[in-house]
Amino acid sequence: MPELRKDPITGRWVIVATDRARRPADFSRQQVVPKGDSFCPFCPGNEQKTPPEVLAYRPNGGPNQSGWTLRVVPNKFPALRVEGDFNRQGEGLYDRMNGIGAHEIIIEDPDHLLTMSDLPEKRIEDVFWAFRDRILDLKKDRRFRYILVFKNHGEAAGATLEHTHSQLIALPVMPKRVLEELEGSRMFYDLKERCIYCDILRQEIDTGSRVVLETDEFLVVCPYAARFPFEVWILPRRHRSHFEEADIQTIRALGWAMRVVLRKMDKVLERPPFNFNLHSAPIQETEVPHYHWHLELIPRLTRVAGFEWGTGFYINPTPPEEAAKFLREVGLV
Amino acid sequence: MPELRKDPITGRWVIVATDRARRPADFSRQQVVPKGDSFCPFCPGNEQKTPPEVLAYRPNGGPNQSGWTLRVVPNKFPALRVEGDFNRQGEGLYDRMNGIGAHEIIIEDPDHLLTMSDLPEKRIEDVFWAFRDRILDLKKDRRFRYILVFKNHGEAAGATLEHTHSQLIALPVMPKRVLEELEGSRMFYDLKERCIYCDILRQEIDTGSRVVLETDEFLVVCPYAARFPFEVWILPRRHRSHFEEADIQTIRALGWAMRVVLRKMDKVLERPPFNFNLHSAPIQETEVPHYHWHLELIPRLTRVAGFEWGTGFYINPTPPEEAAKFLREVGLV
Repeated sequence: MPELRKDPITGRWVIVATDRARRPADFSRQQVVPKGDSFCPFCPGNEQKTPPEVLAYRPNGGPNQSGWTLRVVPNKFPALRVEGDFNRQGEGLYDRMNGIGAHEIIIEDPDHLLTMSDLPEKRIEDVFWAFRDRILDLKKDRRFRYILVFKNHGEAAGATLEHTHSQLIALPVMPKRVLEELEGSRMFYDLKERCIYCDILRQEIDTGSRVVLETDEFLVVCPYAARFPFEVWILPRRHRSHFEEADIQTIRALGWAMRVVLRKMDKVLERPPFNFNLHSAPIQETEVPHYHWHLELIPRLTRVAGFEWGTGFYINPTPPEEAAKFLREVGLV
Repeated sequence: MPELRKDPITGRWVIVATDRARRPADFSRQQVVPKGDSFCPFCPGNEQKTPPEVLAYRPNGGPNQSGWTLRVVPNKFPALRVEGDFNRQGEGLYDRMNGIGAHEIIIEDPDHLLTMSDLPEKRIEDVFWAFRDRILDLKKDRRFRYILVFKNHGEAAGATLEHTHSQLIALPVMPKRVLEELEGSRMFYDLKERCIYCDILRQEIDTGSRVVLETDEFLVVCPYAARFPFEVWILPRRHRSHFEEADIQTIRALGWAMRVVLRKMDKVLERPPFNFNLHSAPIQETEVPHYHWHLELIPRLTRVAGFEWGTGFYINPTPPEEAAKFLREVGLV
């Protein structure tokens, strides 16, 4: 019998197929393997082909030269522009504003042929340091209310360039899903005076069946009402609402956990395309007791069907317990 | 300068690219052309390969034989099951229920090689009659609270079989997006005592720039805060909350409008994959003054990137005014 499950934070229902659950081998394979067969503006030596960098970790060489290990540059074709003043307008019924914001690219490593999961631990850790550094810098600009940090890996996940990179978009408005998470977790907090994510952490550790990985700092789980097969959340065990407040111990542990999870996913699902999103509290607010930052990681194994757009209602062909078991049990050697 | 636009019903913000707007030729082509090169359970003569039909329009022959022009059958691999009683349970923090529901396939025409846009007007009209007939039948079952009606056309849109068909899923819970639309339109109604969709109709007809097609019964527009390039909404001009209450005049006009829009889309975008969703009020409620049924049609031209999942925040590379102009101006001969 299939099951309907409700996400406790957003209230979203998901159908979880249980009888004919799809296992890793049942998904079509679109292995993401960088080819490096065309010109790449993110490769060392081509620094002049991107806008000037806003951040770089560079043991050798000067700005906008090679010698870097990680480089952050404005998107050459940004979705939003940094220049200009706020301008909110009505248009009859409708609301609009000019597209002020920042759109940056985090080039994660100089080597074109490596994917994020191939990177050494320290390089992955550095990606998170770069997210933190850029958020701390951008939040000084009071026009920005939220910063999206995400990665599209592989063409099926929306990546247009194969050189490993993630992205950041600073927005003058709050995205709807973030507001929903904030609202859902606030309702729970009002009722119980506890953070719902902290409760989820405790229950998942007790239950165990959805746990992929448990460390001193992080819990990696397939969420109870997973929308997608092999959807994975990386939750810090210590309550904190803002990612950018994470300390060195947390960022290090995150680099390690991320590397392990990506390598497990590569092994179980054969280097799948994926997306991740950092979920964090609004940048202009101070510590929010009911919100708990985390990272959501989704391999792109299935096509999203029509009604999922229209309704926010998902069918997940792989129970999270089965997905977690595959990911938990796969060895990395 | 890019623009941020807010959907007046759901409050969702969308970035609309204005400078480097993508035109039809800029999207990669994945023409959907049925090949008919493998066994098809939906073809005439193979009626025994599907579960027994629940509805058919059949000028000739008996049940589950050929001679039909349209056939509705339960999905052989349903996402939900009809049998059983409700059973809601807690699981610590979480909520679940058994997966009770109906999942049906509407086989729109016997000819395997035709797509919906190739069908004669009467056949398309019949698809909407079938939706209406099935909704009226299923709503008698008081366990069901909502019926999703949708179509996935082409592999990129999530279709697994190429023979032209749409689907229907009856649910024991309300999908989240539908609740949001109901809530958003109710808030507007509480404030103004007017239906927001009726206001949108008036404003769009006045403005004209987003109109694709205007008939006595329907307005076809690219919505102001379109999430996707060439997203199209088909709105009935007469206020009515439930699709299944539509009269013969409306259904006929809908068949005609749908055919014209699909053919225009085929011409401008070269037979693109697409999804549509019928948006209608909850089946167990009587006439809702603030809700207005409509159909949302989305060609699948771009990959959906990671942050769109995580945030409900979209970047649309084609302003709806440009999309509407292409669709409005293309001739059908």
